Amino acid sequence: MEKQYNPREFHPPLSGAGPKEAIDFEKGGGLVPAVVQEWGTGMVLMLAWVNKEALFLSMETGYAHYYSRSRNKLWKKGETSGHIQKIREILIDCDGDTILYIVEQTGPACHTGAKSCFFRRLSN
Amino acid sequence: MEKQYNPREFHPPLSGAGPKEAIDFEKGGGLVPAVVQEWGTGMVLMLAWVNKEALFLSMETGYAHYYSRSRNKLWKKGETSGHIQKIREILIDCDGDTILYIVEQTGPACHTGAKSCFFRRLSN
Repeated sequence: MEKQYNPREFHPPLSGAGPKEAIDFEKGGGLVPAVVQEWGTGMVLMLAWVNKEALFLSMETGYAHYYSRSRNKLWKKGETSGHIQKIREILIDCDGDTILYIVEQTGPACHTGAKSCFFRRLSN
Repeated sequence: MEKQYNPREFHPPLSGAGPKEAIDFEKGGGLVPAVVQEWGTGMVLMLAWVNKEALFLSMETGYAHYYSRSRNKLWKKGETSGHIQKIREILIDCDGDTILYIVEQTGPACHTGAKSCFFRRLSN
């Protein structure tokens, strides 16, 4: 059975808050962490980093874009693998320093082929 | 109806990986981001930061501990508010540079009184 997760139940929109005013990019040197959660299942798929341009492109195109800290460049998730992420919601946290992408994931989110990058357990 | 989210369906344990070997604390100057997800609903509640000691205390005590970047000190979630987080699972990502706490949340997770810190929407 498909487990349904509907963030609208929990996250009423804040009217009037646009990305420029609402997000504190300065705190992290131009980057904020983006948690990525799968629409429908609620599974946490990955965490990546976003700068203003990556956020803008994600909102404009409807597909998740990030900024790679190791390669120092913008990337579109799935550009080479085809494992794209269609944006369903973008939420920001109370401090404006973390983003939550809720996405429809095509294929596995993880480069290892795992559905989620979080496939190792430290405790139980 | 309570929506059930069971990470065991998705995240088989990796035997033999302990925290010291598995987590790259150096990349982020001693800290890694910890995504916090509610057991049972799958709701993403917050993101905070963890150093080795915070992770150790979380595992040892069974309650979520973090490291505050602004106050430069270790803190136990709910120590003053009572809004504690009982750890159900700790997962780490493929790169070993992000942690996922799956918790039973007492009261709201957010200091604003919201259930989740992610209560503002940028797009829909």
